[in-house]
Amino acid sequence: MSPESLDVLGLVAGGLTTFSFVPQVWKLWRTQSGADVSYGMFLLFSLGVLLWLVYGVLLNATPIIVANAATLFLALLVVALKFRYRR
Amino acid sequence: MSPESLDVLGLVAGGLTTFSFVPQVWKLWRTQSGADVSYGMFLLFSLGVLLWLVYGVLLNATPIIVANAATLFLALLVVALKFRYRR
Repeated sequence: MSPESLDVLGLVAGGLTTFSFVPQVWKLWRTQSGADVSYGMFLLFSLGVLLWLVYGVLLNATPIIVANAATLFLALLVVALKFRYRR
Repeated sequence: MSPESLDVLGLVAGGLTTFSFVPQVWKLWRTQSGADVSYGMFLLFSLGVLLWLVYGVLLNATPIIVANAATLFLALLVVALKFRYRR
């Protein structure tokens, strides 16, 4: 597979894993309830994504950088919404 | 940064993003409640992780392969537990 198509694959994979947080953010916003969502998951995940971001920068791999910067924002948004709607 | 330490960074990043699903699986198992967890997120995420797995195989990047194979299993486990405990 050519480097270009590999980059496209990475961008699509990254796009999906990043965009996947939007339904969870939307559900939290709509239901204003996040009791079943795990803080542990989204905080650990955010830390890992931060390291993937560093990995992507060091590797100079655009798909990894773009995906993980956006994912970090969305994952932290889930944490913020869960905290805001806590009971 | 040497290729070896870059691999270690990737393994730690992958380890964190993969392990982060365990607290969500544990919470679902313990509370037997997944109403606030979004099917959309975990199904889209699983699809993206599947593509990351292909990306890792094509790139022959061990950290990306190992992390995404395990993440796929755990993400699908979240979907299965949410379905099992649906009301």
